Amino acid sequence: MPTPASPTSPTIFTRIIRGEIPCHQVYRDEQVLAFLDINPIAPGHTLVIPIEPAATMDALSDESAAALGRVLPRICRAVCAATGCADYNLLQNNGAAAHQAVFHVHVHIIPKPAHAHGHGSGLGIDWPARAIDHAAAAELARRIATHL
Amino acid sequence: MPTPASPTSPTIFTRIIRGEIPCHQVYRDEQVLAFLDINPIAPGHTLVIPIEPAATMDALSDESAAALGRVLPRICRAVCAATGCADYNLLQNNGAAAHQAVFHVHVHIIPKPAHAHGHGSGLGIDWPARAIDHAAAAELARRIATHL
Repeated sequence: MPTPASPTSPTIFTRIIRGEIPCHQVYRDEQVLAFLDINPIAPGHTLVIPIEPAATMDALSDESAAALGRVLPRICRAVCAATGCADYNLLQNNGAAAHQAVFHVHVHIIPKPAHAHGHGSGLGIDWPARAIDHAAAAELARRIATHL
Repeated sequence: MPTPASPTSPTIFTRIIRGEIPCHQVYRDEQVLAFLDINPIAPGHTLVIPIEPAATMDALSDESAAALGRVLPRICRAVCAATGCADYNLLQNNGAAAHQAVFHVHVHIIPKPAHAHGHGSGLGIDWPARAIDHAAAAELARRIATHL
């Protein structure tokens, strides 16, 4: 994995956007670039990034976030068509504790190959769920909404 | 978890959108609804869904996908502010093999609490990566691009 850059230095993705580092590009427009992850966890593992160099989703402009969202259905269809995988995960990590390694927003499109195991088998998920406490949830939802 | 609905029957999320089933709502506009997951894997685990009842991202309209993208930075900021978590994952699953349980597009916003273990500790990720084969990748990127 590349060494994480500080928030103020250009990340490897900014250097890819500038053309200083090559990539296996699949899509580009004025606001969005998509290319293959060079350490894929499944064939067709693609990264979709805004041209805007925001480190995390909460720091991204509404306009770039909308542009990023708008192209996801098209790129997902293209990845599925090219790989033959109908199932896939989108993952976007924010912060080192949440497994972010490059501090430029990137959405992983990760095909889930049928019957694959080990390297290249797509995203593995651990899901430590429990039933919600509805009284606490009502209070928490209210608190989140006050910030919107 | 709710029983997966067939693609043609209303899912539990359509019933939440219609107000037939209650939710801990945090945000709503003409195209997007956000509410707390009732089986959270971390405090503040929030679902952001389009009003449009597409089962998977590849089936969502560009307009709904853009609207969904546009609100993510705001909702992420609000979830972080209310929970005190700076780190978080966004996850959107497509297809049963990719862990999708409700067949209506939903983006999970999952805070990653510091030093948490077991229930409520946020998303656990298994990442079966290997270095890319550049010759195969060049051909695959070309094939994906032909579908765009």
